[in-house]
Amino acid sequence: MGIQIMSDEIKLSVAELQNRVEAAFNKAGLNSVQAGALARVITAGERDNCKSHGIYRIDGALRTVQAKKVDPQAVPEISDNERPAIVRVNANGGFANAAFELGLPHLVEKTKKNGLAALIINNCTHFSALWPEVEALTDHGLSGMAMCPSYSTVVPAGGTKPLLGTNPFAFGWPRENKSPYVFDFATSVAARGEIEIYRRAGKQLPEGWAIDSDGNPTTDPDAALAGAMLPFGEHKGSAISTMIELMAGIMIGDLTSKEALDFLGTTSLAPNHGELILAFCPEAFSGSRRGNALAAAEVFFQSIVDQGSRLPSQRRYIAREQANQNGIFLSKQEFEQLEKQQELGLDSIN
Amino acid sequence: MGIQIMSDEIKLSVAELQNRVEAAFNKAGLNSVQAGALARVITAGERDNCKSHGIYRIDGALRTVQAKKVDPQAVPEISDNERPAIVRVNANGGFANAAFELGLPHLVEKTKKNGLAALIINNCTHFSALWPEVEALTDHGLSGMAMCPSYSTVVPAGGTKPLLGTNPFAFGWPRENKSPYVFDFATSVAARGEIEIYRRAGKQLPEGWAIDSDGNPTTDPDAALAGAMLPFGEHKGSAISTMIELMAGIMIGDLTSKEALDFLGTTSLAPNHGELILAFCPEAFSGSRRGNALAAAEVFFQSIVDQGSRLPSQRRYIAREQANQNGIFLSKQEFEQLEKQQELGLDSIN
Repeated sequence: MGIQIMSDEIKLSVAELQNRVEAAFNKAGLNSVQAGALARVITAGERDNCKSHGIYRIDGALRTVQAKKVDPQAVPEISDNERPAIVRVNANGGFANAAFELGLPHLVEKTKKNGLAALIINNCTHFSALWPEVEALTDHGLSGMAMCPSYSTVVPAGGTKPLLGTNPFAFGWPRENKSPYVFDFATSVAARGEIEIYRRAGKQLPEGWAIDSDGNPTTDPDAALAGAMLPFGEHKGSAISTMIELMAGIMIGDLTSKEALDFLGTTSLAPNHGELILAFCPEAFSGSRRGNALAAAEVFFQSIVDQGSRLPSQRRYIAREQANQNGIFLSKQEFEQLEKQQELGLDSIN
Repeated sequence: MGIQIMSDEIKLSVAELQNRVEAAFNKAGLNSVQAGALARVITAGERDNCKSHGIYRIDGALRTVQAKKVDPQAVPEISDNERPAIVRVNANGGFANAAFELGLPHLVEKTKKNGLAALIINNCTHFSALWPEVEALTDHGLSGMAMCPSYSTVVPAGGTKPLLGTNPFAFGWPRENKSPYVFDFATSVAARGEIEIYRRAGKQLPEGWAIDSDGNPTTDPDAALAGAMLPFGEHKGSAISTMIELMAGIMIGDLTSKEALDFLGTTSLAPNHGELILAFCPEAFSGSRRGNALAAAEVFFQSIVDQGSRLPSQRRYIAREQANQNGIFLSKQEFEQLEKQQELGLDSIN
């Protein structure tokens, strides 16, 4: 497609953006498996107009590399493939994305063979969304869940201190000839970045977002950042977040959000912990009891859409289609930042 | 222990209550696998002072039998045990509880062998809580999730009509020499029974519980019952409830909540659909990477308790310990109703 400059916007094809982001990571000293995998999820975020997981994230990744909290040269390896339904990948201190790409084909194979299977990623830095993981499963006709801890900035319901992470949870269901049904959300009411936005704007937070360091409800962004965020859905969301600590932290032999923050010492870098992905083969589960499960799901989705409710991720899919057809548009400032990152690598960090 | 009458309360041992409830179901024409399994969960509910799932439920079970919406003579059978990590039990139109008891040992065996496994229950009537299922797994040192549809009384976020069920979700984690970590909740803000309580008391509902039949927010219990309940946690809870329809309805080749209600024609009887239980072997998942996962979980639980937050199910466990030591106390009215059920079976229904 070539680069086109339209007024103040710069247009790139998805492949061009992928190449540029990968080049920036190569320049910063990442090996090819790390740079490629990271560039793929960042480009996917930008393509889907999911700006908070797009090129904006490059700087954070580079800072985590510079702080030596992630190994830019890590080569993930399958560390356990013996259990029939479990694949374990040791990210060896690198980013989760490269580890996921290594484990995926094994996970797909084991899921199709056994009906369900799990991919454990240990010792990784996870800093992107989880929808790329569940979408990778739906691409293979599988359903899946993904979850991971983060760092402890969320208070358990009824408590007074941060212990849980914003612990994202994602789910995907494959659809024939359509973008999959996918949701991916933080188990906190709001993301930490959202509180930061209120702080910069000098605005008070909505009620129910946070507590101060004494454990009292607060709408003051500074007090909230010094205190803790609340889980979504009160004790129910808190329970789900706790489940994620247990399953995707402790059960897989990796760090909880509290341990990840203790190790990292700051919330401004990406944390090191584990990740858990569960995959399910709809055909194996349905056993064709009531015909094709994917067809039955379409009837169900239609009843959601028909009443004016929206399926999640639709905005992303519309943006994706536009990007695939018309390219990705970056602001002049974004493009210049990306060029700087390509040219200077780690030295691009302000 | 023998029966003791203390003022107006009648005391029974847990075993005595189990025998009486089982006798009532036998009298109503249930075969021994159905009566025994049902009596075990109802007795457990009463023992744990979880009154909404205790002997109060006998009448509803009998009504569902009388309406011929459940087969009192059903013998569940393993219908598919071929997939390495899946056990499928056909409840053959009986209650889920008997089917679960049949499938459990196979699920435990497959989980220990493969690392994780699934138990699918098809064609069952589920009307008890889900914590008995996940507690049965924790008794074997396994972690687990359980979920099922119900009948469509909940609106998807942003919609106007009931489509989702109150779709319960339960999770359990085993603890050594302690009652397990277990949560079990409806994915609606409130249970339908709670709205009924407000209606009878002539009170307005809290905001955010329900919409009327035009899709507008309402605090009027009658309008809410004619309309729909809201999912907990807005779009996030709605997404989880949708996942339950997909996984524990469609994926397992069974009915969605909407289909279950269409089949049943009323919300006053227990619905027929399926149930999904996922089990995980913590040792297989942790691979002893960071020592014993159960021990690590205790450190995490302590950080919850230390800050004044409560672990879920603790009230149930305290009630259980008291019941095991001192017996279960029924009101005179409850005891007389139970005697009537024992004597008359289906004819006890008013």
